[in-house]
Amino acid sequence: MPNPVDFKLYLITDRTQVAAGHTLCSAVEAALQGGVQAVQLREKDLPAAELLPLARQLRDLTRRHGARLLINDRVDLALAVHADGVHLGGRSLPTDLVRRLVGPELLVGVSTHSCAEISRAAEQGADFVTFGPVFATPSKAAFGPPQGLEALAEACRGSALPVFALGGITAERAAEVMRSGAAGIALITAILANPDPRSASSTFAA
Amino acid sequence: MPNPVDFKLYLITDRTQVAAGHTLCSAVEAALQGGVQAVQLREKDLPAAELLPLARQLRDLTRRHGARLLINDRVDLALAVHADGVHLGGRSLPTDLVRRLVGPELLVGVSTHSCAEISRAAEQGADFVTFGPVFATPSKAAFGPPQGLEALAEACRGSALPVFALGGITAERAAEVMRSGAAGIALITAILANPDPRSASSTFAA
Repeated sequence: MPNPVDFKLYLITDRTQVAAGHTLCSAVEAALQGGVQAVQLREKDLPAAELLPLARQLRDLTRRHGARLLINDRVDLALAVHADGVHLGGRSLPTDLVRRLVGPELLVGVSTHSCAEISRAAEQGADFVTFGPVFATPSKAAFGPPQGLEALAEACRGSALPVFALGGITAERAAEVMRSGAAGIALITAILANPDPRSASSTFAA
Repeated sequence: MPNPVDFKLYLITDRTQVAAGHTLCSAVEAALQGGVQAVQLREKDLPAAELLPLARQLRDLTRRHGARLLINDRVDLALAVHADGVHLGGRSLPTDLVRRLVGPELLVGVSTHSCAEISRAAEQGADFVTFGPVFATPSKAAFGPPQGLEALAEACRGSALPVFALGGITAERAAEVMRSGAAGIALITAILANPDPRSASSTFAA
């Protein structure tokens, strides 16, 4: 059976944003305790040899909390640690090729920034997409200008896949984001940069 | 049947070293015409999306010349383009894990710099190793101080695997390198930086 997209709170890692007093793994563990249901390991500057121990720790943590683990970009690493899926960005291997590599079982998530990209991801066999940035983010340089709630709503209406809203989403804005039709919310800073990732996560989960 | 290590001249790519008037692919094609029997795609700074078209072009070229294609580091890319193998460096996934991912069919080459590393590669299921740098190389900063012919001979004597000598090997030195017990020679600069990669390769092949 293919993995279902059975999560709403999707945490994307960035160890450079982890608040003082936490390691990446302790922050992720706190987030899982707070209600995060899926984690994407995304540390683009690390070589495979350094990603592997991180991926294994996150595999243990996510399994213990009944959460999903996805690996950014490296399909080989996802297979190696028995992750639940891979997440592809614009510089990753094409979605259709990755789908052939991983078979029907593994989740394939794709980062998108337009309705056209969402359609292409669906055609090529993705299971879900992230869409953003919805709002301005501290990491906005990497994600482009904010798209706004209007564009998010349009993207969700036109999408055959679950859409996870990404970018600058705070707990206060989470409700309106979900009302726009998003299947869930993808978070980095709001959880990892918070000194209390557990309570930050549980606010979103609520 | 597992792929045999049936080559002696092993070209490792570095598009930054390609001589004026050549693209990486035209230089590799000329090298194949000159007698190179295996090619490793190694462009560490390129993301997967940019490696893929290069890997596909090299797959076509190597197939047409009856040569092997290996992909550096990215096992997923090797599987995607039906390469003959992968080549692992110190920052790659561990050899034993990669062997489990690719099965017995694909070649697994490993970069080594000591007899201990060669033994470990053999234990973990590698098919062959590169050993070096034998001589000082233009890219010596990346490979450490030269080991010399003595160390190469010792490495070859103690190795259960074919050893490819790497680093600063010129056509003049090729004969003594082979007399040291090397199974073959791995080359970057001597072929790619030569304005005539075909004749450079055929000198080595002879």
